[in-house]
Amino acid sequence: MSIATDQRPVILTGDRTTGPLHLGHYVGSLKNRVALQDTCQQFLLLADTQALTDNAGDPEKVRRNVLEVALDYLAVGIDPEKTTICVQSGLPALAELTLLYMNFVTVARLERNPTIKDEIQARGFGRDIPAGFLCYPVAQAADITAFKATLVPVGEDQAPLIEQTNEIVRRLNRQIGRPVLPEAKALIPDMGRLPGVDGKAKMSKSQGNAIPLSATPDEIRDAVRRMYTDPNHLRASDPGTVEGNVVFTYLDAFDDDRATVEELKDHYRRGGLGDMAVKRRLEEILQTLLAPIRERRAALAQELDHVQDVLRTGTQRAKELTQATLDELREALGLFAL
Amino acid sequence: MSIATDQRPVILTGDRTTGPLHLGHYVGSLKNRVALQDTCQQFLLLADTQALTDNAGDPEKVRRNVLEVALDYLAVGIDPEKTTICVQSGLPALAELTLLYMNFVTVARLERNPTIKDEIQARGFGRDIPAGFLCYPVAQAADITAFKATLVPVGEDQAPLIEQTNEIVRRLNRQIGRPVLPEAKALIPDMGRLPGVDGKAKMSKSQGNAIPLSATPDEIRDAVRRMYTDPNHLRASDPGTVEGNVVFTYLDAFDDDRATVEELKDHYRRGGLGDMAVKRRLEEILQTLLAPIRERRAALAQELDHVQDVLRTGTQRAKELTQATLDELREALGLFAL
Repeated sequence: MSIATDQRPVILTGDRTTGPLHLGHYVGSLKNRVALQDTCQQFLLLADTQALTDNAGDPEKVRRNVLEVALDYLAVGIDPEKTTICVQSGLPALAELTLLYMNFVTVARLERNPTIKDEIQARGFGRDIPAGFLCYPVAQAADITAFKATLVPVGEDQAPLIEQTNEIVRRLNRQIGRPVLPEAKALIPDMGRLPGVDGKAKMSKSQGNAIPLSATPDEIRDAVRRMYTDPNHLRASDPGTVEGNVVFTYLDAFDDDRATVEELKDHYRRGGLGDMAVKRRLEEILQTLLAPIRERRAALAQELDHVQDVLRTGTQRAKELTQATLDELREALGLFAL
Repeated sequence: MSIATDQRPVILTGDRTTGPLHLGHYVGSLKNRVALQDTCQQFLLLADTQALTDNAGDPEKVRRNVLEVALDYLAVGIDPEKTTICVQSGLPALAELTLLYMNFVTVARLERNPTIKDEIQARGFGRDIPAGFLCYPVAQAADITAFKATLVPVGEDQAPLIEQTNEIVRRLNRQIGRPVLPEAKALIPDMGRLPGVDGKAKMSKSQGNAIPLSATPDEIRDAVRRMYTDPNHLRASDPGTVEGNVVFTYLDAFDDDRATVEELKDHYRRGGLGDMAVKRRLEEILQTLLAPIRERRAALAQELDHVQDVLRTGTQRAKELTQATLDELREALGLFAL
């Protein structure tokens, strides 16, 4: 079905290709994407160009992880017949749209972007922020609008990026005099970010507190064992705290048996329930969840030609779509065409 | 002959497509380009993408002037068999290279660029400088390196742009470990900028002090008549000043009979030579220079299909060359390829 006759909403999402995906990605986005591919026209962008904005010194890492992230997608159940998986660097129209949009956004506006401000601080860039990094919200606006996406799943902290996109959209539509580009809505997941196993706010490979989707049974067991609980809950008989206790946070995220989880929380609060007992339950759930993902991933890793084919087909489709948007926009603005 | 087997130096130059070219362009660059096309592999870029960085609100002007500037090129004797004339917006590899290079340049470095500083002031952007304008030196680095140009004719005030290009080249070559991209040299013309007919430092269409290459005989005569001379030279018999006297500056630029020009200067200084006499000489020289250019331009304007063909052929050739550089660089950096 072509994108134009298909009436389902267009959804664009994706990941920077800086490392394999982990459980945080699974609950925060991958699980939703598997569900959304039936009800939306879904595009998944392997964002290798964006990954370079703060990894220019290590392009090999960015390259290698294009296939790693693609394997993760397919392993969790993203179906390339339903979802278009494409590689950002294979879509020249995105670069052209980015340069075009950069003329409609001031430097002062980019510097005010709260997401950028936070990330500059987190990465320690200070004054030496690469121009590409400062401008990546413009590149994201190019990504979103090139697909004419109206739904963009993002974490709550990334909502300002959607606002930036819509500012550009309104600016262009106003100049053109008709709505060539649609505005996009942020789709913020119910579930907040999954904390790292150490209890830190964000699960992240670089923090060493992540459980990757390809984790072996031993890695899963070890990760659960060293998981942060209540540091004052020294003996099983002591009353314990559930809030901020990573094991319970994960049970909330992964255990479908809500009633039992609530019972366990009550028991833990009263005292008499040891950390190990709760961890054993969580470990079993994670082992059950990750075993088939790991197996599918291992099988796919034996067929990299097939994975490459998936990316080639998806990128070709995305190339035509994004080029069509660029052509339409250039014509609407009255730019030169040969 | 392919660019690789051709041993002549590669030269890249061009013009922002914001208005038809004028006499200032003729002496400052066009005349040299006509000479250089025999000794160099010359590429002329119709820089419509760059023109948008400070004309985003008037894309129609930028579009219209692509053909106007192309007509000027052909009218002054640029030979498309010798020089490749191409349209910047038709070369997606330039946008992709720009985004790539933006990761290797800091915002602080771009803000320190003296050319950018001056132009921000001249255009009154202040804090509201468009991101595209701040980054245009990176886009120029992309242009220059995409063609592997080693010679870049620029005005003296633009030499910092070449330095910015070479910084990017060195940064990339260092990371790659071999000289994939060549450094470029600024080719600064002997002749400084031609002043406007009003004596202001720079001839410019927007200042209303320019003589366009397509000027009619009446327009040429009127322009020379209102030309700024020595405001204290009230009667022909008064001694006059030659320095800063636009008529003499133009005679220096356009009159090949050096001896006569020196005699006229002496006479003017002594007194006894009226402005009108000098202006008549200049007018005749300019009429003689511009008549064949204007006629060729008018004839070409009747064959716009031919001009479009020239641009299509040149842009296609440039597209292949610039794409080859992008592919080579991406491979050398170890980026992903489908």
